[in-house]
Amino acid sequence: MAENGAARIRLGMVGGGTGAFIGYVHRIAARLDGDYELVAGALSSRSDIARESGRNLGLADDRIYASYEEMARAEAARKDGIQAVSIVTPNHMHYGPAKAFLEAGIHVICDKPLTSTLEDARALAAIKPKKGAKFLLTHNYTGYPLVRQARELVRSGALGKIRVVQAEYPQDWLTNAVSSKQADWRTDPKRSGAGGAIGDIGTHAYNLLRFVTGLKTDSLSADLTSFVEGRKLDDNVHILLRLQGGAKGMLWASQVAVGCENGLQLRVYGEKAGLEWRQDNPNQMWFTEFGKPKQLLTRGGSITVDPAPSMNIRIPGGHPEGYLEAFATLYSQFAQVIRGEGKAVAGLLPSIEDGIEGMSFIAAAVKSSQGDGKWVKLSEV
Amino acid sequence: MAENGAARIRLGMVGGGTGAFIGYVHRIAARLDGDYELVAGALSSRSDIARESGRNLGLADDRIYASYEEMARAEAARKDGIQAVSIVTPNHMHYGPAKAFLEAGIHVICDKPLTSTLEDARALAAIKPKKGAKFLLTHNYTGYPLVRQARELVRSGALGKIRVVQAEYPQDWLTNAVSSKQADWRTDPKRSGAGGAIGDIGTHAYNLLRFVTGLKTDSLSADLTSFVEGRKLDDNVHILLRLQGGAKGMLWASQVAVGCENGLQLRVYGEKAGLEWRQDNPNQMWFTEFGKPKQLLTRGGSITVDPAPSMNIRIPGGHPEGYLEAFATLYSQFAQVIRGEGKAVAGLLPSIEDGIEGMSFIAAAVKSSQGDGKWVKLSEV
Amino acid sequence: MAENGAARIRLGMVGGGTGAFIGYVHRIAARLDGDYELVAGALSSRSDIARESGRNLGLADDRIYASYEEMARAEAARKDGIQAVSIVTPNHMHYGPAKAFLEAGIHVICDKPLTSTLEDARALAAIKPKKGAKFLLTHNYTGYPLVRQARELVRSGALGKIRVVQAEYPQDWLTNAVSSKQADWRTDPKRSGAGGAIGDIGTHAYNLLRFVTGLKTDSLSADLTSFVEGRKLDDNVHILLRLQGGAKGMLWASQVAVGCENGLQLRVYGEKAGLEWRQDNPNQMWFTEFGKPKQLLTRGGSITVDPAPSMNIRIPGGHPEGYLEAFATLYSQFAQVIRGEGKAVAGLLPSIEDGIEGMSFIAAAVKSSQGDGKWVKLSEV
Amino acid sequence: MAENGAARIRLGMVGGGTGAFIGYVHRIAARLDGDYELVAGALSSRSDIARESGRNLGLADDRIYASYEEMARAEAARKDGIQAVSIVTPNHMHYGPAKAFLEAGIHVICDKPLTSTLEDARALAAIKPKKGAKFLLTHNYTGYPLVRQARELVRSGALGKIRVVQAEYPQDWLTNAVSSKQADWRTDPKRSGAGGAIGDIGTHAYNLLRFVTGLKTDSLSADLTSFVEGRKLDDNVHILLRLQGGAKGMLWASQVAVGCENGLQLRVYGEKAGLEWRQDNPNQMWFTEFGKPKQLLTRGGSITVDPAPSMNIRIPGGHPEGYLEAFATLYSQFAQVIRGEGKAVAGLLPSIEDGIEGMSFIAAAVKSSQGDGKWVKLSEV
Repeated sequence: MAENGAARIRLGMVGGGTGAFIGYVHRIAARLDGDYELVAGALSSRSDIARESGRNLGLADDRIYASYEEMARAEAARKDGIQAVSIVTPNHMHYGPAKAFLEAGIHVICDKPLTSTLEDARALAAIKPKKGAKFLLTHNYTGYPLVRQARELVRSGALGKIRVVQAEYPQDWLTNAVSSKQADWRTDPKRSGAGGAIGDIGTHAYNLLRFVTGLKTDSLSADLTSFVEGRKLDDNVHILLRLQGGAKGMLWASQVAVGCENGLQLRVYGEKAGLEWRQDNPNQMWFTEFGKPKQLLTRGGSITVDPAPSMNIRIPGGHPEGYLEAFATLYSQFAQVIRGEGKAVAGLLPSIEDGIEGMSFIAAAVKSSQGDGKWVKLSEV
Repeated sequence: MAENGAARIRLGMVGGGTGAFIGYVHRIAARLDGDYELVAGALSSRSDIARESGRNLGLADDRIYASYEEMARAEAARKDGIQAVSIVTPNHMHYGPAKAFLEAGIHVICDKPLTSTLEDARALAAIKPKKGAKFLLTHNYTGYPLVRQARELVRSGALGKIRVVQAEYPQDWLTNAVSSKQADWRTDPKRSGAGGAIGDIGTHAYNLLRFVTGLKTDSLSADLTSFVEGRKLDDNVHILLRLQGGAKGMLWASQVAVGCENGLQLRVYGEKAGLEWRQDNPNQMWFTEFGKPKQLLTRGGSITVDPAPSMNIRIPGGHPEGYLEAFATLYSQFAQVIRGEGKAVAGLLPSIEDGIEGMSFIAAAVKSSQGDGKWVKLSEV
Repeated sequence: MAENGAARIRLGMVGGGTGAFIGYVHRIAARLDGDYELVAGALSSRSDIARESGRNLGLADDRIYASYEEMARAEAARKDGIQAVSIVTPNHMHYGPAKAFLEAGIHVICDKPLTSTLEDARALAAIKPKKGAKFLLTHNYTGYPLVRQARELVRSGALGKIRVVQAEYPQDWLTNAVSSKQADWRTDPKRSGAGGAIGDIGTHAYNLLRFVTGLKTDSLSADLTSFVEGRKLDDNVHILLRLQGGAKGMLWASQVAVGCENGLQLRVYGEKAGLEWRQDNPNQMWFTEFGKPKQLLTRGGSITVDPAPSMNIRIPGGHPEGYLEAFATLYSQFAQVIRGEGKAVAGLLPSIEDGIEGMSFIAAAVKSSQGDGKWVKLSEV
Repeated sequence: MAENGAARIRLGMVGGGTGAFIGYVHRIAARLDGDYELVAGALSSRSDIARESGRNLGLADDRIYASYEEMARAEAARKDGIQAVSIVTPNHMHYGPAKAFLEAGIHVICDKPLTSTLEDARALAAIKPKKGAKFLLTHNYTGYPLVRQARELVRSGALGKIRVVQAEYPQDWLTNAVSSKQADWRTDPKRSGAGGAIGDIGTHAYNLLRFVTGLKTDSLSADLTSFVEGRKLDDNVHILLRLQGGAKGMLWASQVAVGCENGLQLRVYGEKAGLEWRQDNPNQMWFTEFGKPKQLLTRGGSITVDPAPSMNIRIPGGHPEGYLEAFATLYSQFAQVIRGEGKAVAGLLPSIEDGIEGMSFIAAAVKSSQGDGKWVKLSEV
């Protein structure tokens, strides 16, 4: 049961069979706070793997499905059918399941990016969910308590008007041509869409920037590169941003930056103060008011803005929480939404609209890069 | 269900009612990998709180108990009774429940330190558990992947013979006289035993040193201080250690070190190499071979000793895991032991023997400090 | 005397009167290794300040000059006249003195950027120095031992072909409109030239990138901004770079990034390895070979490439050297050049050609920014 | 000349011939601010080396001496004789020259520790210097601006009453048995005195603690170890301290801590605040008021206590100063004392009394360690 005594939400999963990475992460996130129970799955497009994976996870045989369509139909018809579903397939397989479950009245938790094309994203937004089914896009980095804190600091005016934003997400795992379950679909335009690094990690950096600053992007100028021989999608992303209200930004994402594991970092500078946060040590954040010493804010420590319950701080400062806890916070707060108790987290959970903005970001970047870096408005892709 | 399809282990809890900190941590740890289901509890010595707490956690009314004795009796008699119990009460209330459940043939997961007196600890070790019931002491910091890595490095000989060990655990939350559920029992000799900081956090630092180096302590010289007016137990611990084989150590634990949240840190120096690890950024560890550049080992990153499955690395390097994951690793690996699959983790899980050693460490330190710092052998307390 | 027993080089200074910052730095740099003795100066364009400043520095009255022209003439005529001169005036006052002293056969040490316009820079390069007078441009960050080490690593092939370069230099001292001796000329186009932050600090970042990677820039796309009301020159610089050979770069410089003191940082990623260095902790550098742990190289510590004498490591690793030592290394190695012993440092000391490249960088960035970020070739400005 | 126009102080040097480390450091320190000119030396006890070393440093032949006695006599008799002398010999050769020059009316700058025995130290204190000759002991770490800042913070009451002090100075260069000019005398009781690591670096850590906290040590309990086969002096130092007023301390010094270069670190915790400083990144210091976020104070940055001129901050925050600058500050401030302008630095420069205290610290530690760690009062050795 959940810590608050509420019954667990019955959960299904599409994708996430044996060997998948992100499906495993979603399952831990669903379990951590006790709000969900996985009871059904269409875990692979290959029925043998689907079956084996389902059994490994202890699913009842009659709730292991060979396709998401069948699962949506069957579960919607059951009295004890799933109430929510997690979609953890490659990008091009987000749209179909999301549509099917929303139309079946089942809440959808969908990995990012929203879809593989902007068209699909818009089509998804146009769908009328049955029975008020809700949608969560797992831009999981927004679940970190100090990311919430950063957003609060900006909203409170502590930084003053924002001037400069530096976002980056360097990795090095695609430094060489590699082939693996994880690498293959991410470098395949058919499954990933038109963006490589920009879709896989650039959207995370963009979403983080958007979430914390609250600023929309007016236009961008991009230089996407594919460094590895034969790779079809970009593995390095250099972008200049012009944000609404006059702020300027830089965004760098790379899968070939040797020595970087998951260096997601956001730096925001306003007229009055600045802040800096890194994902690989997420329990600390620098905050500096102009002319005063730098302050190291810690998750659960002494902070200038009172921690809101929506920050979901589970353990005291100095005891690190990590990636899985941030992910779990999205799950548990979406559980609040599902149970009709989502007021406290209104505006905090990534939505279809955020997903469309992310897809517009990708489309604009690809268009700009193909146009030799000309400035492209996000509103015009 | 667990990720491997095994049925969940039915779990009870003693202590951990509303407002308790460590019980909540144990529940998350039990859930995270899907190996346990909480179904019964004697969550408070006050029956009204016990009932309310149980209901909040969704326990069935007939499995909410007013006392651990009743719970041990009743659950042992049920067909669907608990298979394991978590004991998360103040120190002086470890011995009673541990004895009761072991003698009822129910596996015991017990918070540290083992008991409040060395006598109780030894008495517990003398008990004959029914039906082979197992015991886990939650020295949770040993669950961190890089702590396991550190131990492996020492065992592999990479450091050569150990010469110097520096362990410390500074905090600042008891800087002033405070009263709270958490503070009160920790500063009360009746509930904590003879040690304050030394029992609460000093034992963690000692256990970490012991776990990583594998070295027993021959003798120690201690200077325990209580800085806050009226406090009955030590809030600062200064200890010199002489380890078996000739290594020397220092151990510092403090609850009045302003600016320190949970600064648990271990530094080990051998004839050939040295390593340094801090709990507040646990996904990194320094490793230096003499005459070569310092290396920053990362959890799940490129490391010199291959990561063993027993390190339980859930997500790739650069995505931080934290305190709860380390705690959960003890739970999930104890689940392996319970299921008879514990071979892979043999020697890694803290036991009653480790608990006795921790109690000897406390007793020796108190005795040495009372004797103006004379060297006291751990084997003679 | 110098440590090697050579007689001190007689030095003059243009600019650097009371209240000036960089003149003081040059004087310390000249003294530190014992290679120079300041004996003459035209320290201010205001003759009273020139006189007072000269006396404060202990100059003989007849070697305190009211103008650099007079000083060049008089000193060239003296038997014990200066052998070298340091030019530490605002940018627009570099060209005149540099020309005068080179034509008087006196070696020139000139602060950066080379001049205030590209035309001046080219004119300076066209001058025929008398008696083989040499020229040093004080891009002082190239004097740091680990910057030299980084360059060596790149040249040795340890990084493989360079792919991505991230250079940045954020400060915050011009966050508000301020007026001071230091701020005024830097924000005045007449004295600084067409660039604000880009000339003052952007050129440092650019030069560092150039020095370490050895790569010329093919073209750039810039977005220069002036955030502070009424400021005439840029205070924030966002640039995308296309380097020769296919590498891509980003360069950020800012004077309004609250919380940043002098955050000069260079990150270079190649096909085989990556490195990262920050000026504010210059005695460390990260070096990572793909698939291996990160290494922390230290100045004077254990490093993969043997330290060359040209790194000028004065004290052992762990004892920090800083900004002044790096600056002094340029001075002492230029002394070697002056004495005809400059072979060991050939190619390491910033030259007029580096200065022209820096001016081209500024001109191209201004042109690109005025052209809405169109790509501008450095060879075409 | 000095920056303030004062004539340079004529300086001699005892020790510091070719191959010596600390003599070179003293010479840079003497030059950096322009306050001294080296004109005479007895640079080695071997006359051939003395002559060659002197010539390499450009000394006139008649001011290169074969012995310090001769130098003291001859220079005292010259009209242009040295005004001050730097003594940079091994420990056992401090007393003789110091006595000779003080009695010749020449100011003495002496490397630490003061002497090789406590007796010599006391004898030195009993000497009546001629013509008011002054004495400086180069405990150079006290010259760091942030160490001065730390002292100011303690004195201002910002930390409240001090409770706990943790000082450490780990190195690794004597991990193995080595032979070199630097290593040999440091591990030879005849030249070093009764202390190895404790004299070479332990005294630095002790002096730093003493300088910052202002607290005298009442008594200590020590465990000194020599880990390397055949080494006659300690290479690892573990000490518990009881400070006057009730504060407790730990001091660790080691020459066998693999991976540590010069890890001098001081942490001070009071009733109201704590601070932490490391020598290897000396331009930053942590300062935390209880219940507030940690602050990162920077040299020359925004600090809570106004920087005093005595901090001698040469360049702005973000531009690192290092070891040589701190050393040079002692030299330039001693020049102020010599010139009769030392009021501003009264109490800041290490004196003979500090040297005696350091020798008492060594003697007490050796005595305690020989007595199996019994507490020894500093006042009773």
